[in-house]
Amino acid sequence: MEDEYADSRIQWSGRSWRLRVYQQTSKDGRVFERGAIEHPGSVVIVPILEDQVLFLSQYRLALNSTILELPAGTRVWEEDWLSCSKRELREETGYRAEKWLALGEIWPAPGISNELMHVYAASDLHWDPLPADDDEEIELKPLSFDEAIAMASNGELQDAKSIVALLRFKAYYAPEL
Amino acid sequence: MEDEYADSRIQWSGRSWRLRVYQQTSKDGRVFERGAIEHPGSVVIVPILEDQVLFLSQYRLALNSTILELPAGTRVWEEDWLSCSKRELREETGYRAEKWLALGEIWPAPGISNELMHVYAASDLHWDPLPADDDEEIELKPLSFDEAIAMASNGELQDAKSIVALLRFKAYYAPEL
Repeated sequence: MEDEYADSRIQWSGRSWRLRVYQQTSKDGRVFERGAIEHPGSVVIVPILEDQVLFLSQYRLALNSTILELPAGTRVWEEDWLSCSKRELREETGYRAEKWLALGEIWPAPGISNELMHVYAASDLHWDPLPADDDEEIELKPLSFDEAIAMASNGELQDAKSIVALLRFKAYYAPEL
Repeated sequence: MEDEYADSRIQWSGRSWRLRVYQQTSKDGRVFERGAIEHPGSVVIVPILEDQVLFLSQYRLALNSTILELPAGTRVWEEDWLSCSKRELREETGYRAEKWLALGEIWPAPGISNELMHVYAASDLHWDPLPADDDEEIELKPLSFDEAIAMASNGELQDAKSIVALLRFKAYYAPEL
């Protein structure tokens, strides 16, 4: 497998991820290119404040629209996953969490990217903000836990990582709901 | 917002998606680039055969590994979503489904891509294969419904779209489980 895919180049490098393009040959001899994103990994967090989950309303360039999602962020290459989560939570919500629960790992888009995402729940929150990234447009949107779970199940919530994180947290914490 | 992001170019075009790169200026005047994938959209399917869910074991170039996931596929630009699902299910599992249930839409990776994914459950399956894509390496892996749900919740299943699709199906079909 390795050899077949050896012919590749970095096509573009951004601040957090890069695009590698592979030259491949199909069974009938046609040469074509396949792209794959090389990604440092990321985190998504379910922040619990009393009976609420802290969601964000965030502008996303790729969609050119503002969507509802949980706090999340891209890791700096080699950054510790939990340190990354703690930093992102303070940057995006203003809260520091004393309690962290690891809820496994997911691949958001394995067809195009090697991004691995660690899922956490965070509770025992205290106001302790870090400056937000200057290129992010974010607004805090607390939802009740029940409302968030309903939206994840009924299709109203469309962000895949947020759905997985919420439903993993529910399975762990409140399987009877 | 539009004007700020107007300065862009197509950096690479593959068979199914392309990378657009935007020139942006930060508040302190630095110019930098941001990438965003332009994607035709995709589908993911929960195929139900008696008390089993038909999973696949599929090689993924971006991960350079073989992962467990539900049947899924990229839409041809402008292709009808349900037609795409019917085609992908026959190509990847060999089965045609008589019953289709729409389970909403998700964004797998809104931080980097505008990919919209339609989620379906498919049942009343009959053997009626279409030739597989010649660049896909796929093996059918049936799992019991209960086992699949457990793996989605406990972290054993890592593919985000498969987790969302299964848990949406469970919420719709068997909320008491």
